[in-house]
Amino acid sequence: MSDAPRVTLAEIAAEAGVSLATMSKVLNGRHDVAPATRARLEEHLARHGYTRRTDRQRSDVVELVFHELEASWSMEVIEGVEDVAHAAGLSVVLTVSGDRHAPSADWIDGVLRRRPVGVVLVFSDIAEHVRDKLRSRGIPFVIVDPAGDPSPDVPSVGSANWSGGLMATRHLIELGHRRIAAITGPEDMMCSLARVDGYRSAMNAAGLPIDPELIRFGDFHPGGGEHHARELLALADPPTAIFAGSDLQALGAIAAGSAAGLRVPDDLSVVGYDDIALARWMSPQLTTVHQPLRRMGEEATRLALRLADGKTPETLRMDLATHLVVRGSTAPPA
Amino acid sequence: MSDAPRVTLAEIAAEAGVSLATMSKVLNGRHDVAPATRARLEEHLARHGYTRRTDRQRSDVVELVFHELEASWSMEVIEGVEDVAHAAGLSVVLTVSGDRHAPSADWIDGVLRRRPVGVVLVFSDIAEHVRDKLRSRGIPFVIVDPAGDPSPDVPSVGSANWSGGLMATRHLIELGHRRIAAITGPEDMMCSLARVDGYRSAMNAAGLPIDPELIRFGDFHPGGGEHHARELLALADPPTAIFAGSDLQALGAIAAGSAAGLRVPDDLSVVGYDDIALARWMSPQLTTVHQPLRRMGEEATRLALRLADGKTPETLRMDLATHLVVRGSTAPPA
Repeated sequence: MSDAPRVTLAEIAAEAGVSLATMSKVLNGRHDVAPATRARLEEHLARHGYTRRTDRQRSDVVELVFHELEASWSMEVIEGVEDVAHAAGLSVVLTVSGDRHAPSADWIDGVLRRRPVGVVLVFSDIAEHVRDKLRSRGIPFVIVDPAGDPSPDVPSVGSANWSGGLMATRHLIELGHRRIAAITGPEDMMCSLARVDGYRSAMNAAGLPIDPELIRFGDFHPGGGEHHARELLALADPPTAIFAGSDLQALGAIAAGSAAGLRVPDDLSVVGYDDIALARWMSPQLTTVHQPLRRMGEEATRLALRLADGKTPETLRMDLATHLVVRGSTAPPA
Repeated sequence: MSDAPRVTLAEIAAEAGVSLATMSKVLNGRHDVAPATRARLEEHLARHGYTRRTDRQRSDVVELVFHELEASWSMEVIEGVEDVAHAAGLSVVLTVSGDRHAPSADWIDGVLRRRPVGVVLVFSDIAEHVRDKLRSRGIPFVIVDPAGDPSPDVPSVGSANWSGGLMATRHLIELGHRRIAAITGPEDMMCSLARVDGYRSAMNAAGLPIDPELIRFGDFHPGGGEHHARELLALADPPTAIFAGSDLQALGAIAAGSAAGLRVPDDLSVVGYDDIALARWMSPQLTTVHQPLRRMGEEATRLALRLADGKTPETLRMDLATHLVVRGSTAPPA
C-alpha cells in the first residue's frame, strides 16, 4: 500500500465522469451498467489501486471454489474450511467453476455481488484482472495447492509433494523392490511433477535405473490408475511395485492387478497418495502418503480471514508436511 | 393461504407497538433487537401468517444444510444441488449444523440474514417454530431423506428404502444363502427401519426364519459395519451373507471378514447400500443398492426453486426408485 492519501470512490467517479451511484454499481457487481462502461470504470479502479474499506457491510460468508468436486478428496478440504469459518461465525458458499487452472469468467460477477469475507480457491490460479477486481473490493483470496506456479504475491497453501513422492518410493525400495513404476497426476499440474521428481530422486539416491516406460501421467481418478497399471503389468518386464500418485489411482491400480490375477501385496505392492478417509477401510488397507487436506483447508481459511482483518501474514506461501502411512498394500517382492 | 386481505408489516408493527424499522430488523435476522422483543415480534408475525413478498431483494444463493459431511455420501447430494442451482444462476451456501434430527438453534438467524432463495436440509427435520420463521420470510425448504417422520405438509425427497432392503436380501436368498444378517443404520432413523423391514419381508416371503441375533443397528460408518460384522462372524452359527445397510458399513464388514480369514465373496457375501462412486472400484467390486443421491439433491433443489417461484407442486413428497447393482462381493455360499 502506498503512503499517498487514499483516493475516494467519489473522486474516481468524478475523474471518470460518472455518478457515484454508477461507480457503486460497478463495485458491487451489478449488471445494470453497460459492459463497456463497467470495463472502463474497472480500469479507473485498478489504476488508483482503489481498495474498499472492508469493515462495513461485510457479508457473513467465505467463498470456497472448486473446479470439480471429487468425493473423497474435496470433502476433507471442505470440512477444514467449514470448521474455521464456523468458528468465526461465518458460513461457506461453495461454487464449482472453471477448470483446474482458473475459475470461469462469469464467476467473478457473482463474487462481487455476494461480497464474501474471503475466497479460498482449490487447485486453481486466478487471472491478474480478476485479482485486481478482488483487491479493489477488499476481498482477500488464498489458493490451495495451486496447479500452476503461483506468483509469489499470491497467498497459497500447499503440501510437501516432492517429499511425499520421495518417501513413497523409498519405502518400496527398502522393502526390496527394484522395478518400481510411478503413475502421477496430469502433466500440467505442479503437484504431479513434484511427486514424480521425488520418485526420481529416491531411485537415483538408491542407485536404481529409471526406466521412462515406468513413468506415467494419469488423471488422479481410479480410471487413470487402472488404465496405466494395466499397461504396466502387460510389459515384458513388469514392475513389482507401483507408486500410484493418488489413493483413487491406487484403487484403479489394485483393480488392474486383480484383473491380471495378481494379489496385493503378495504379488504387487501399491502405494497411494492423499490418505483419504476410506484408505484404512480398503482390503488390504492402503499404504499411502498422508496429505493434510483438512488442515490445508483450515490454514487457507485462517489466512484469508487474517488478510480480511487487514493483518499481514509473515509468509504468503505455506507448505504443510506430508508423511508416509504404512498399511497393508505393500510388502517385499515375491 | 387465507383469502383475507394481506396484513402489511407496518400494520403488524403498529399492533405490536414497535416501529417498522424494528420489525424489519427482526424479519432480517439482525441481532440489535433484544431477544425477548424478537421473540414477541416473531409471535406477532406467526399469528398473522405474515409472508414476505419474495420477488424483491432476493439473494442469489440456495442454502444446503448437512448435520455432518460424509465424504462419499454427501458429495453426491452436493453435486446434484450444485448442478440445479448453477443452472438457475444461483450459488450454494453449505452449512453443517445440528444433529441428524434438526439444525442447531442459532442456524436460523444466519439463514434470515443470508436470505437464501430456498433451503435444502439433508437428513434433518426442522422444528415447527423454525418452519414458521422461514415461512414468514418466504423462504421455502425441502428435506432430503428425513430421519424422522416428516409432517405431510413438509416438502421432502426420499428414496425407496424398503424396496432397497427387499432387493438386497432377495438377491442373497436367490444365491442360496439361508443364514443372512442385516446391519442397518441407527434405530432412530426412518430409512434404517425401512431397509431392515425390507430385509424381514424378503426373509418371510422366502419362508426363512428371522433370527433377531442377526439384525443389528449400526451407524452407517465403516466402524459400525466392522464392529457388528466381527460380532456376527464370531457367533456359534455365523451368517454366510451380510446385508450391510450402507456401502461404508459394507467396507467395515469386508474388513472384519478379512480379519477373520474370510474371503469375499467366496466365504462371505456382502451387499452394500448407496452405490457411492467408489463402490465399483473396490476389490472385489461392491454389490449394492443404488440410491440416487445425486438425483435426490437435484429434485430437492428443483422443488425448493419451484416453491420460491410461488408454484404449488403436485406432491410435496417424492420417493425416487432404488435398484440393485450386482457386482463382485456376492456369490453362492461355499
